[in-house]
Amino acid sequence: MQHIKRFFIGKPLKSSDEGGQQLSKVKALALLSSDALSSVAYGTEQIVTVLITLSAAAIWYSLPIAAFVLILLTSLILSYRQIIHAYPQGGGAYIVSSENLGTYPGLIAGGSLLVDYMLTVAVSVSAGTEAIISAVPALYGNQVGIAIIIVVLITAMNLRGLRDSASLLMIPVYLFVVVITIMILTGLAKISTGSLAFHATSLVGAAVPGITVGLILRAFSSGSSSLTGVEAISNAVPFFKKPKAKNAAATLAIMGIILGFFFAGVTYLNWYLGITPKLKVTILSQVGAAIFGHGSVMFYILQFSTALILALAANTGFSAFPILAYNLAKDKFMPHMYMDRGDRLGYSNGILTLALGSIVLIFIFNGSTERLIPLYATGVFVPFTLSQTGMIRKWWHERSKGWIGRSLANFVGALISFSIFIFLLMYHLGDVWPYFIIMPIVLLVFYKIHDHYHKVAAQLRLVEQVKFHDYAGSTVIVLVSNVTQVTVGALNYARSIGDYVIAMHVSMDENPAKEHETESEFKKDFPDIRFVDIHSSYRSVSRPVLRFAEIISKNARNRNYTITILVPQFMPKKPWQNILHNQTSFRLRAALASREDIVVATYSYHLKR
Amino acid sequence: MQHIKRFFIGKPLKSSDEGGQQLSKVKALALLSSDALSSVAYGTEQIVTVLITLSAAAIWYSLPIAAFVLILLTSLILSYRQIIHAYPQGGGAYIVSSENLGTYPGLIAGGSLLVDYMLTVAVSVSAGTEAIISAVPALYGNQVGIAIIIVVLITAMNLRGLRDSASLLMIPVYLFVVVITIMILTGLAKISTGSLAFHATSLVGAAVPGITVGLILRAFSSGSSSLTGVEAISNAVPFFKKPKAKNAAATLAIMGIILGFFFAGVTYLNWYLGITPKLKVTILSQVGAAIFGHGSVMFYILQFSTALILALAANTGFSAFPILAYNLAKDKFMPHMYMDRGDRLGYSNGILTLALGSIVLIFIFNGSTERLIPLYATGVFVPFTLSQTGMIRKWWHERSKGWIGRSLANFVGALISFSIFIFLLMYHLGDVWPYFIIMPIVLLVFYKIHDHYHKVAAQLRLVEQVKFHDYAGSTVIVLVSNVTQVTVGALNYARSIGDYVIAMHVSMDENPAKEHETESEFKKDFPDIRFVDIHSSYRSVSRPVLRFAEIISKNARNRNYTITILVPQFMPKKPWQNILHNQTSFRLRAALASREDIVVATYSYHLKR
Repeated sequence: MQHIKRFFIGKPLKSSDEGGQQLSKVKALALLSSDALSSVAYGTEQIVTVLITLSAAAIWYSLPIAAFVLILLTSLILSYRQIIHAYPQGGGAYIVSSENLGTYPGLIAGGSLLVDYMLTVAVSVSAGTEAIISAVPALYGNQVGIAIIIVVLITAMNLRGLRDSASLLMIPVYLFVVVITIMILTGLAKISTGSLAFHATSLVGAAVPGITVGLILRAFSSGSSSLTGVEAISNAVPFFKKPKAKNAAATLAIMGIILGFFFAGVTYLNWYLGITPKLKVTILSQVGAAIFGHGSVMFYILQFSTALILALAANTGFSAFPILAYNLAKDKFMPHMYMDRGDRLGYSNGILTLALGSIVLIFIFNGSTERLIPLYATGVFVPFTLSQTGMIRKWWHERSKGWIGRSLANFVGALISFSIFIFLLMYHLGDVWPYFIIMPIVLLVFYKIHDHYHKVAAQLRLVEQVKFHDYAGSTVIVLVSNVTQVTVGALNYARSIGDYVIAMHVSMDENPAKEHETESEFKKDFPDIRFVDIHSSYRSVSRPVLRFAEIISKNARNRNYTITILVPQFMPKKPWQNILHNQTSFRLRAALASREDIVVATYSYHLKR
Repeated sequence: MQHIKRFFIGKPLKSSDEGGQQLSKVKALALLSSDALSSVAYGTEQIVTVLITLSAAAIWYSLPIAAFVLILLTSLILSYRQIIHAYPQGGGAYIVSSENLGTYPGLIAGGSLLVDYMLTVAVSVSAGTEAIISAVPALYGNQVGIAIIIVVLITAMNLRGLRDSASLLMIPVYLFVVVITIMILTGLAKISTGSLAFHATSLVGAAVPGITVGLILRAFSSGSSSLTGVEAISNAVPFFKKPKAKNAAATLAIMGIILGFFFAGVTYLNWYLGITPKLKVTILSQVGAAIFGHGSVMFYILQFSTALILALAANTGFSAFPILAYNLAKDKFMPHMYMDRGDRLGYSNGILTLALGSIVLIFIFNGSTERLIPLYATGVFVPFTLSQTGMIRKWWHERSKGWIGRSLANFVGALISFSIFIFLLMYHLGDVWPYFIIMPIVLLVFYKIHDHYHKVAAQLRLVEQVKFHDYAGSTVIVLVSNVTQVTVGALNYARSIGDYVIAMHVSMDENPAKEHETESEFKKDFPDIRFVDIHSSYRSVSRPVLRFAEIISKNARNRNYTITILVPQFMPKKPWQNILHNQTSFRLRAALASREDIVVATYSYHLKR
């Protein structure tokens, strides 16, 4: 087991090694931008799919809609750069909202994102699987299996730690960036040289009968769901190399520029080439085929790198979820275990929870997760709105130099995010409604956990000057099943800690002759120790031991003694041999833990052969 | 959980209630004969199916073959009656063989039967399921599910205990006995009054071209596989009412007479009516249809009671397996846990192991277990041969009055059983070969377990006069994670048992200011207790604790002190709340159990809210 773990996860790292695990801008981009960049694979498609429901002529509207999405992107990037600088210790929506708006808005933001990261992983891994299947049709029918293998691989990468996974991720992310850049530039060059013919379904500005504001807003809200990956970098500021905030802000800007260029480029080429959505071929793939030629080497590289980046978009969730869970656990809204660091300094429990949650989602939705996208977008734009509103309040409170400009940037961001939330409710309520069931449950769980930790802390706190209680002595009850070397060792130990040692035996044999065998053996060997024989009519050891302990405990309290029950056990040489022995000691420990004033001790005798 | 268990299993019984759980002859027959009696449903069929491969005219040979099977049955019954009287404490093949032939023959007999009982359950439950499906075709496709439900129901019955399940079993077993008796008698009456026409495919003694000794032996060995249920009663003698041996022998005789009458009757009627095997309708069902009329009420009662008794034949395995496992465990060839009695005095672990094993077999063979029958017959006739050979040696050793007659009875039984084993090898090797793979593995496991218990006992035995070792005192290390009420309670206790108390804290924070927070808090409250702060670079608590304990342990040995590590923990009010706390104490206990000279004690502080 240990060897397998070492192979996949790597050697344990010292806590002080943390510095070495930090990220350069190049690696950070690979690690944190795959979600955002992968949206190029479906962003334009989502807009066009809505428009085509009216007519092919409506496709030209994708250009102004894309422009508006780009404005939204710019505003979000500016707004999040401000958050990075204001929260260099890592400023996710949870922290920004709870610090500036209060605990509840913070928990809504945090809870939304927590559920959302699971959806991200499920959705993007499923999308990646579909891309793989359309490249290798022979794999059809194994979607769920492939998706789970991808989740497991990404999980292992993340358990290895940030630095190692960043190195691994660089290849597919930068391959995708290079391929899409070549595609757009080649396309533009071919258009300018006239070797790509103009086939647009209609000119920009052409009148389209039946067009409504509702349709355009519907298309816009669909398209903007591809902006969900922006949050990741602002969460991860502490993992950057120094100067952390500056590097993080720069990385965010670079990501924004690449994403904007890709989104604009693909949408323009799509319109120019007059491409309409087909059932089995994505728009990106059609654009690539038109530019590179169907069946060319570059076309296959495009397909392959798209599949890879879609699958790896899940990694953004893996970067962000454990940090968010850590922050919620630190504030006692989630179990403490999310604060534990694993062998490689990652928050292993968060990573594993996310993996498990997304695998369950993949199973439930059987790998077809498209309808989860509006729900997922809702879960992103609610915290976006909250965190940017929070930033406005922050600037107002501080009113330092330039606060009006900063507030304005965040105000635009908040307004657009909120509008998209409203559009999602208006035009996608059929898919969005579970949000209003999931959130109250998540908030209730947060509250229950917080309340529990609060009560525990109050009960454990030392309120006044500590006064020691001096006991007069200690009673030790040694359980004896039969008289062996283990008994001798246990009694020796008991005499070293106890002032009064009692041996207790539970007999179950109905044969009176055999019943007192242990007693006479014991008395022969240990004549000076009190031996108590208790008959159990129901063949249970725990009940008579508890009953007897209760009596002794009363006496001990009167004499101001403590009570210890010593359970002797022997450890076989090989672990499998444990099944050959009745594990009474284990059951006894569990039963005795219900008694406050009795300490249970285990004496282990080790077998040599 | 407790309530559900009580509902299905019933109230716990006192060990001394055993007497009340004992069986009258009527109940014993119901409980122990379903396997044998159910063979009426397929015994004749197996003979005829072999003969028909030559020609329909060969069917008359089923009459002499059946006669020979009846001789075998009589011999087995006589032989087992002798075993019952010789071993009134329960004389299964395992006990008889190991006492008279030696340990290895005994283990071969015991191992064969152990595996066989699992096969019995799987085979008979599958047969019962098929019978149910052919009655209610709508259930088709759910074979495995139905089979598992039947296994679970029979398991629950057996966990409730002998007496209760006997009462439940009486109805289907006696229903079957009554229905078959009516069928045979009606058939004979109709034949004698001429209302059933003679349709035999050939007269008895007619020359059948191509008939060979091989074919007849093949048919005979197939038919004799229905005699496998005879062993059950001789195993269960201790469960009978007094006089145990006499009642058991009488029950065995009654069962033999019923079985012989049924087998002879069905075979005769089948020949007289000239019935040949059909793919989807069993011979018994065809005989029933001819006598009662297809679609008559009696016909449906016959079908229904056949299905029930086939399913319940599994119960014979449930009666015999736990007793055999108990005997093997008593001789240290199987884990001790098979000697534990459950709430209702049954050997629950044996019952559950059998249930699990047969469910696995049903899954593996997907409910079609017909091909297991020759394998299963082999596993029965090997122990039959061994136990009867053992009886001959016993009579020879004792040479009491009438020993020659008794030896002769057992000799005939052994000879026939051995011949069937040889015929099975000759004519069914394709299905029988796994026996020679399974048995060496089973014997190896027996040997390994025996060897382990032997070594353990040798190491634990007190060889000379016990001399106490007097320790000079005791060191107690109290683990402190933070300074709370739990710490105070644990320190109070530690001072009552220890001469030297050390508090130990494992700090993991990389922030030096925070690192010594616990230390200064502790020193403020407990200035007189030594506090050791250990920094863990790898975020593990167990390793530094073990390392420190090792140092202290060396010192303690030099001073002749014992060492106790006290792990304070608090118990939340509700069990689910445990997941909200890092269960360090659990992991620590596991890690510390690897050290022989350190006793681990747990101090539990109970939260009130």
